[in-house]
Amino acid sequence: MSERRRGRVTIPTDVDVVPETLELVKRWGADAIRDCDGTEYPEELRNVDAKVYSTYYTTRKDNEWAKGHPDEIQQMYIMTPFYNAVESTLRIHLMNHLYPDMLAVNSRDDISRWWEVIDRTTGEVIPAEGTCFGIREGEIEPEEQWHYEEDTGDVVITGAKEFHDYTVSFLAYIMWDPVHMYNAVTNDWKGVEKQITFDVRQPKTKEFSMERLRKYIADNPHIDVIRYTTFFHQFTLIFDEFAREKYVDWYGYSASVSPYILKQFEREVGYPFRPEYIIDQGYMNNTYRVPSKEFRDFQDFQRREVAKLAKEMVDITHECGKEAMMFLGDHWIGMEPFMDEFKEIGLDAVVGSVGNGATLRLISDIEGVKYTEGRFLPYFFPDTFHEGGDPVKEAKVNWVTARRAILRKPIDRIGYGGYLKLAMEFPEFIDYVEEVCEEFRVLYENIKGTTAHCVKRVAVLNSWGRMRAWGNHMVHHALYYKQNYSYAGIIEALSGAPFDVRFISFEDIRENPSMLDDIDVILNVGDAYTAYTGGENWKDEGIVTAIKRFVYRGGGFIGVGEPAAYQWQGRFFQLSGVLGVEEETGFTLNVDKYNWDEHKHFITEDCKGDIDFGEGKKNIFALDGTTVICQRDKEVQLAANGFGEGRGVYISGLPYSFENSRLLYRAILWASSSEDELKKWFSSNYNVEVHAYIKNGKYCVVNNTYEPQSTTVYKGDGTSFELDLGANEMIWYEI
Amino acid sequence: MSERRRGRVTIPTDVDVVPETLELVKRWGADAIRDCDGTEYPEELRNVDAKVYSTYYTTRKDNEWAKGHPDEIQQMYIMTPFYNAVESTLRIHLMNHLYPDMLAVNSRDDISRWWEVIDRTTGEVIPAEGTCFGIREGEIEPEEQWHYEEDTGDVVITGAKEFHDYTVSFLAYIMWDPVHMYNAVTNDWKGVEKQITFDVRQPKTKEFSMERLRKYIADNPHIDVIRYTTFFHQFTLIFDEFAREKYVDWYGYSASVSPYILKQFEREVGYPFRPEYIIDQGYMNNTYRVPSKEFRDFQDFQRREVAKLAKEMVDITHECGKEAMMFLGDHWIGMEPFMDEFKEIGLDAVVGSVGNGATLRLISDIEGVKYTEGRFLPYFFPDTFHEGGDPVKEAKVNWVTARRAILRKPIDRIGYGGYLKLAMEFPEFIDYVEEVCEEFRVLYENIKGTTAHCVKRVAVLNSWGRMRAWGNHMVHHALYYKQNYSYAGIIEALSGAPFDVRFISFEDIRENPSMLDDIDVILNVGDAYTAYTGGENWKDEGIVTAIKRFVYRGGGFIGVGEPAAYQWQGRFFQLSGVLGVEEETGFTLNVDKYNWDEHKHFITEDCKGDIDFGEGKKNIFALDGTTVICQRDKEVQLAANGFGEGRGVYISGLPYSFENSRLLYRAILWASSSEDELKKWFSSNYNVEVHAYIKNGKYCVVNNTYEPQSTTVYKGDGTSFELDLGANEMIWYEI
Ligand SMILES: [Mg+2]
Ligand SMILES: [Mg+2]
Ligand SMILES: [Mg+2]
Repeated sequence: MSERRRGRVTIPTDVDVVPETLELVKRWGADAIRDCDGTEYPEELRNVDAKVYSTYYTTRKDNEWAKGHPDEIQQMYIMTPFYNAVESTLRIHLMNHLYPDMLAVNSRDDISRWWEVIDRTTGEVIPAEGTCFGIREGEIEPEEQWHYEEDTGDVVITGAKEFHDYTVSFLAYIMWDPVHMYNAVTNDWKGVEKQITFDVRQPKTKEFSMERLRKYIADNPHIDVIRYTTFFHQFTLIFDEFAREKYVDWYGYSASVSPYILKQFEREVGYPFRPEYIIDQGYMNNTYRVPSKEFRDFQDFQRREVAKLAKEMVDITHECGKEAMMFLGDHWIGMEPFMDEFKEIGLDAVVGSVGNGATLRLISDIEGVKYTEGRFLPYFFPDTFHEGGDPVKEAKVNWVTARRAILRKPIDRIGYGGYLKLAMEFPEFIDYVEEVCEEFRVLYENIKGTTAHCVKRVAVLNSWGRMRAWGNHMVHHALYYKQNYSYAGIIEALSGAPFDVRFISFEDIRENPSMLDDIDVILNVGDAYTAYTGGENWKDEGIVTAIKRFVYRGGGFIGVGEPAAYQWQGRFFQLSGVLGVEEETGFTLNVDKYNWDEHKHFITEDCKGDIDFGEGKKNIFALDGTTVICQRDKEVQLAANGFGEGRGVYISGLPYSFENSRLLYRAILWASSSEDELKKWFSSNYNVEVHAYIKNGKYCVVNNTYEPQSTTVYKGDGTSFELDLGANEMIWYEI
Repeated sequence: MSERRRGRVTIPTDVDVVPETLELVKRWGADAIRDCDGTEYPEELRNVDAKVYSTYYTTRKDNEWAKGHPDEIQQMYIMTPFYNAVESTLRIHLMNHLYPDMLAVNSRDDISRWWEVIDRTTGEVIPAEGTCFGIREGEIEPEEQWHYEEDTGDVVITGAKEFHDYTVSFLAYIMWDPVHMYNAVTNDWKGVEKQITFDVRQPKTKEFSMERLRKYIADNPHIDVIRYTTFFHQFTLIFDEFAREKYVDWYGYSASVSPYILKQFEREVGYPFRPEYIIDQGYMNNTYRVPSKEFRDFQDFQRREVAKLAKEMVDITHECGKEAMMFLGDHWIGMEPFMDEFKEIGLDAVVGSVGNGATLRLISDIEGVKYTEGRFLPYFFPDTFHEGGDPVKEAKVNWVTARRAILRKPIDRIGYGGYLKLAMEFPEFIDYVEEVCEEFRVLYENIKGTTAHCVKRVAVLNSWGRMRAWGNHMVHHALYYKQNYSYAGIIEALSGAPFDVRFISFEDIRENPSMLDDIDVILNVGDAYTAYTGGENWKDEGIVTAIKRFVYRGGGFIGVGEPAAYQWQGRFFQLSGVLGVEEETGFTLNVDKYNWDEHKHFITEDCKGDIDFGEGKKNIFALDGTTVICQRDKEVQLAANGFGEGRGVYISGLPYSFENSRLLYRAILWASSSEDELKKWFSSNYNVEVHAYIKNGKYCVVNNTYEPQSTTVYKGDGTSFELDLGANEMIWYEI
């Protein structure tokens, strides 16, 4: 085995698969072995020639501690449903529709300070009984008041206004770690002790946790890499009374709270905290909400504090001679890896699950760590590895999807997880992954130390910017939603496209409009009033004029869905002048619309048959002078427009496919007036892509499909050759 | 010919069809004869035994007067398109994209007072040069200013802000009456003098107009009925540079303005006028816009003033021994016939074009006149009456569609218009209309003096209330728009349904919430943020609690499209608790949604195959406990929910059809908990309807289709019988 054919691969193990582990170390060239949730590291493998990773849970797996320090159990903010008052007394049972074993109401802390009862008909906060200190003589007490009944678990509102709706925002202890609960419920684990989550941010638990970590390392000298899962705060995950998932937000901050840290927050920001800053009318500041200043302040605060504490653990890890790896998932809130705080933590590595190209870039684009690792699918679990299952197919889809993104920005390692025993029963799977490992090592070798050639500099503009780079339109890790796939498709297409992709926020532009000088094409993708298009940011003349100036001077702007939408001063699309389209919301039915003729266009030259716009958008019409490329039943789906020296493109939606990926590629070239650059490092067949690594003198041609493909390959100088590729084939060339 | 078989019918005539006119007087039983635009009344018919109607134009057909009094030519407010400033000087040519012969810029009046230049990026008003009198010493003049260049016709903005958009709101004289222009352009009239519109509201023209009317009556002693077309102000109708329709709003007030009346408006309301009150960001306060207070003030003012002046003309008409009839159309702005002012005018009659059931009720529901008359289709014009044309088919569709509504609330007369000569060439048409005239007289006789039996009291709730009764979701008279037919279908269904239908406004509820005690079911129909659903009215606790109280105590609420939609305090549908559904706008993607199973339901028992929801609505989901009746691809189209003693029904859209009409009928019965009342005055076959006139002891069964139908007819006591009906047949019974 040559040096080149070993390494960059992690495999799982267990006590019952020692020979198989050793076989795979050889066949797959694995140089790291990991345990998993529910597996144990075998004694016999302690001296194997591979790094050993061990999963470490910072916030659970010690119920004794948790039970001994109930005040330092983790908490989350929860808002009850809306309750309609039909008489002056309204009782709200807080635990309705919540899984009873998962949560416990926190009435230990001052509820009049940390809870909030709100009249959702008016938006008014209802005072807790006995808290109206401000009342002067002669004034009457407020009509509505509330108190909590410990024995019934009800909040009781007195003086409620008939037919107003009320909600209670309250704190609850997380008595069963949601991920542990999910695993237990999904896998039907019996007799499992429900793991309570303790809060490392709080003083006693913090001290305990640092000792606990040192002890763990001391007790496990065979371990090389501590794989943290993760640092402290679970994303929002709540189960209902039937133990079904009730609410999930992979980016949610609502489970990162406690009076202890909120008091610290108040001191730092200099204004009083309100539960509503987290509750956000019940929307919990999910990623579709245009963030409030207070929520941004809270996020900034959390990132600073979480990073500080994570660094303490990483420092201990290093001090003990081990590497520190972070799993990007589960308790990762506050660890946003593209933010400045992250780099200072000193982590050695990040590992994450690879669901598609976008989630690959979510890992591979991380800076400030020594290496990144992708956990590939399928996990070796019975849902796939059962009689009649087709793990090879799943592996192929996962690998080929991720490979596009790896070729733009590689992760440093790949790996698998689950029960090795199950995988060994599928020899074809073992063979296929052997090929994948080899293919990965070859491409890594060819790519390393360089940046793939970028045709254009593209910026995705939204309310989050780099904080949520590659995670746009994601609710839970890479999951499909009817309302997001038409937009997430853009991000997925970009993850494997030859562009320098950055994610910028409105705040970035406000701070420094000249940052746009460095960009060729801006994209704004999503539904009106969401954080992804920006909502009221489009009322800001600074934003509007900066973007218009950018385009007028030659830049490109691509709007997808309801770009730049905000009802203001006679327009819904605030950039309708740039995009050449507007949405009919009913307010302009009276205006005659004559521009419906479709035109052939550079952007759609490679499209075959009907374009898939996914959910598309209804009621879009073109202004005079705009080039309509596609309209359906008098609803514009695709249009192009000139604005000064620059150009705008409107697309109603664009689910991910190879054909749509090509459409987006052409749209970006057209928007930047670079049609003449099309046939450079280019494949005439859109199922095949070409990536160039100029510094290393290499380029590759890669077939993204499971069938053979023929194409014309164009090199950087415009010269071309014909090429036939096998299914999934990747061919490397010297420049 | 029996007495019963004559009367209630108006026919057109011309000098070349005297014998034909006399024949039709006999065959159709016509008792009134009218002239039309482009026809003349024949000398020979002056003594015929029929009333003679003559069209009278209050505002045109006297260019000599108009040219002699250019300051009293009618005016309209116009907003230019948005102009993007790319340097500090921005020139806006006012007449761009406007038909040059139709409009002339009014720079005669003080443009600094009556025009407005607005920065549409910020919403700020830009001062005219020399108007910044308020500047104190030491203060700097505003950066941006504007002036008008008479010779170029440009507004010139100096100090414009780069990449801001500007508009100019200005006054223009209407140099060619838009209806006259439309007729001339459409019929390709050659060498026609363009009729200028003069403004009867202004002093010289008012005096002149009263004399002109007296003279006209004196000169035409054969006329019995002066048919006014109409009183003073054209609805908004603008043509572009190619003479194409550019903007049309049958309800538009923008052509009812002049500095003369606006000064009066200011005096009456006590605050300064702003062009923006009419311009409304360019939306011109069209019927989809939630009206501002200032616009409502302006409408009220116009109605008062127009009615006052119309009364003067009506009084003269009566004084001269003639009847005064108003044509509901063309210059009808300010003459809203369901408002209080209208009744005081003393008109004898209203005539209007009948496009469908809703437009029929728009006429037949008018109170305060002696009789109403419907002008039926097709007009005797060459577009239908040409070789190969099928006027009988058009006549059948029009009659059967209107008949449903006539059976609920009859007009008093029917009539036709156009060139009689053309109609006479289609003997089958003459035969068919003879039948129609007879059928109308029979039904009128059976119905008169009573009110059709109403099963429920239904209120359509929107921002306009009775002012726009039956005209909801109408842009231009009965025309189809992709964005309105799914909602207009509800109004059309109601026009012929056995309900007491009223149109109420949010203002009505605010003034007197107990008005709801008198209603069984409330409907709210349309898109979010439009006047038809109500927009910010749903933020008003008074409205929300009144409606919730109404339903909770047993009322029904049917929401169609985006009912009660306004983003506020955690909800988009403010009545989601009543309707049991909510719209996914992106903000609740994180919430798991489990309620997708469809259920059989009373509401859809008569539906066959897939229900046609028209455009429907995307992204609607059901809350827990709601009964989903129909969802498609996880988007709820139809759902039912209980709320206290009452019920809510959600429908995504409902174009007009007999099947959908039945669905709505059942929804109304279900919403009012009256399923047991279904089989009373009811036809099992939804193509057939039953209408009862208890006081007159009659009921009829009517086949709305062009094919024979069989059905079970249920009488008021629940007894039933089987019945076969011929195509279109209507059968009368005694109770
Ligand atoms: Mg253009
Ligand atoms: Mg919308
Ligand atoms: Mg219910």
